[in-house]
Amino acid sequence: MEYTPESELKSRIQRFQDSLRGQGVDGALICQNVDLFYFAGTVQESFLFIPQQGEPTLMVKKSYARATRESALSNIILLEKVRHIPGVLRDGGFGHIGTIGLELDVLPTNYYFHFQSLFSRSQFTDVSRLILKVRSIKSDYEIRQIRKAVKITDEVMDWAKEIIREGMTELEIDGLLFSQARKKGHQGRLRIRGWNQEMFHCHILSGKKGAYSSFCTSPVCGEGPNPAIAQGAGAQRVRRGEPIYIDFGVGINGYVSDETRTFSIGKPHRLFLRGFEALLEIKRDMEHSAGPGVSGRAIYRRAVELARASGFEDYFMGHGEGRVPFVGHGIGLEIDELPLLGMGISTRLEEGMVFAFEPKLVFPGKGVVGVEDVYLVSSHGVERLTLTGDQLVILPE
Amino acid sequence: MEYTPESELKSRIQRFQDSLRGQGVDGALICQNVDLFYFAGTVQESFLFIPQQGEPTLMVKKSYARATRESALSNIILLEKVRHIPGVLRDGGFGHIGTIGLELDVLPTNYYFHFQSLFSRSQFTDVSRLILKVRSIKSDYEIRQIRKAVKITDEVMDWAKEIIREGMTELEIDGLLFSQARKKGHQGRLRIRGWNQEMFHCHILSGKKGAYSSFCTSPVCGEGPNPAIAQGAGAQRVRRGEPIYIDFGVGINGYVSDETRTFSIGKPHRLFLRGFEALLEIKRDMEHSAGPGVSGRAIYRRAVELARASGFEDYFMGHGEGRVPFVGHGIGLEIDELPLLGMGISTRLEEGMVFAFEPKLVFPGKGVVGVEDVYLVSSHGVERLTLTGDQLVILPE
Repeated sequence: MEYTPESELKSRIQRFQDSLRGQGVDGALICQNVDLFYFAGTVQESFLFIPQQGEPTLMVKKSYARATRESALSNIILLEKVRHIPGVLRDGGFGHIGTIGLELDVLPTNYYFHFQSLFSRSQFTDVSRLILKVRSIKSDYEIRQIRKAVKITDEVMDWAKEIIREGMTELEIDGLLFSQARKKGHQGRLRIRGWNQEMFHCHILSGKKGAYSSFCTSPVCGEGPNPAIAQGAGAQRVRRGEPIYIDFGVGINGYVSDETRTFSIGKPHRLFLRGFEALLEIKRDMEHSAGPGVSGRAIYRRAVELARASGFEDYFMGHGEGRVPFVGHGIGLEIDELPLLGMGISTRLEEGMVFAFEPKLVFPGKGVVGVEDVYLVSSHGVERLTLTGDQLVILPE
Repeated sequence: MEYTPESELKSRIQRFQDSLRGQGVDGALICQNVDLFYFAGTVQESFLFIPQQGEPTLMVKKSYARATRESALSNIILLEKVRHIPGVLRDGGFGHIGTIGLELDVLPTNYYFHFQSLFSRSQFTDVSRLILKVRSIKSDYEIRQIRKAVKITDEVMDWAKEIIREGMTELEIDGLLFSQARKKGHQGRLRIRGWNQEMFHCHILSGKKGAYSSFCTSPVCGEGPNPAIAQGAGAQRVRRGEPIYIDFGVGINGYVSDETRTFSIGKPHRLFLRGFEALLEIKRDMEHSAGPGVSGRAIYRRAVELARASGFEDYFMGHGEGRVPFVGHGIGLEIDELPLLGMGISTRLEEGMVFAFEPKLVFPGKGVVGVEDVYLVSSHGVERLTLTGDQLVILPE
């Protein structure tokens, strides 16, 4: 079992405290699992108070034994009831906290009301954006975790070539790839932050139902197994000559990868091959032009221009109402982190950011092709972390 | 693709409208995926306004094409921006809504603020409890879906006997069971409503790490693959003579099953066999005594008394801080539905409720045994929906 090192937690908290001071927030009460794991190294049921400066306090409901084992923080207190939080903080020297930061993008409203009643003299403010900004710059430790996740994803994608057979259902292929990833240590769950977004470990899509749009903030969703899920693999059987689109992610020690490859049993229609070539060109262009200082907007605009030049603009990043206004997104502990590489996004890449770049084409009534790789922003450009394939993989018939 | 029949949606909405009127709520704005699916038959990005009486309005952002195909509601409107909701409702004859119900148990605070600004003259109230109460009584259609999910779970549990081998990791077994379920149509995701709770499709636990407590509202969690996930299967290898605990669920058309079986390669220590017998006795007792009119509290109390009589009280439903105060829970579209069969719960069983009953024993430093079945409350008692096994399954060495 690998625990987050103390030096990691310290540097993350320090950077967050800098931004709390910058915004005039006296302290933040971290409640959500992912943010707890980031700042405290544990997802045990707890509340983490991070003051503008000084030691944070981790108040743990359950499991206390486990939180003390997992977290390298020094100030860990058993919390019997949520309503004891003000008392615990008072005992720790925080008698009155003027402005309290909360993760208002994810915190359920009833919790907010409860905190309001507990801290009736305090103001509340949303610090989710500050947290996400701190999280967007990855440490060497975090990059090592992402590399491990990427390596397993690469291996699973390679293994996919061996097992895909004509007539298998998408669900069957999905299960086999998952079982292979699990065997190699995949944590099973990939987290997503967006409200009502539901992350799937995998989208295996084939044929024209693969081109269905859905509620997900993703260019490609597919029909899914039923209208309650409405994304990912379904009962559809893969057939020769149709693109088989696989978007797969793996999680290791909390950190995720996100990779897309396109396969075909036998040669697919020329349209798909030409479309895939256009995507590779967009990807190669990004690899040469992206780096520190380049904005999300600029990367997106360039990709759209290239899609237009190749004649595929209408299908790029989805078609019609299914189109999404981005071509890449940060990854880390969640699959929808900063930076977003999309329309109107002024955020500029910085060294240490990690993102997935995913040019995709959705041809309604026909099918989907796509490619997705993971990149680390280095001092002078971007380093690709994913290994396998710059081609539409043609499997023997 | 099976869509929710119109008659289903109508009767659900009618029952909900009855309770809105009972509480003096003028209308509810349904936002969360599961509740949307329940009342509208779709999880496409949308907002469903259900007035106290009259036709509901489904306002769809994405995918509109898909929502109109999936939902049997008649009044479906394309919504460009969330801020257009008041205008759409005004056009539909709802110029001023005095009290608006929201799902405040799950709705993120920022959304609440947004609605407050859009409906500045309205009051807001939490209707999550009303929704959950309506959802707790299952229709024949819903029970058919749950039966399908249960059947696949039974088959996967049966198949587990064939594939478990000494020396396999828990993760490996987990992947194989999942792939088998996927092949049979499992939707992949089991939803849970509780904040920061994260549902896993499966808990495969063995040996003493299986007895680890965690943040989950579950008697049994296990160590998990890493501290970021902190539940379910891990890198642990299954060994002969140790109980192998499998808690597995499957989803079909949104509806889930939840089943636990205990296996052992070769005969396990007498403690586990005796413990398992005590659990069976608790289960048989519930099967004879539960039915309409019996409270959650009464069922829980009886189970605890029997655990005490058998000498296992200290380990029943978790040990120490890991203990949970319930022995069963409703299931349906989510895994944590009403009724809760637990301490102080006055809710009485009603015909049409479906629940999982899960007596379990956690022996710290040793291991876990448990059993879990799904029951339907009938007119005069409970009907067990799960089929397989009333025994600790001993596999050949």
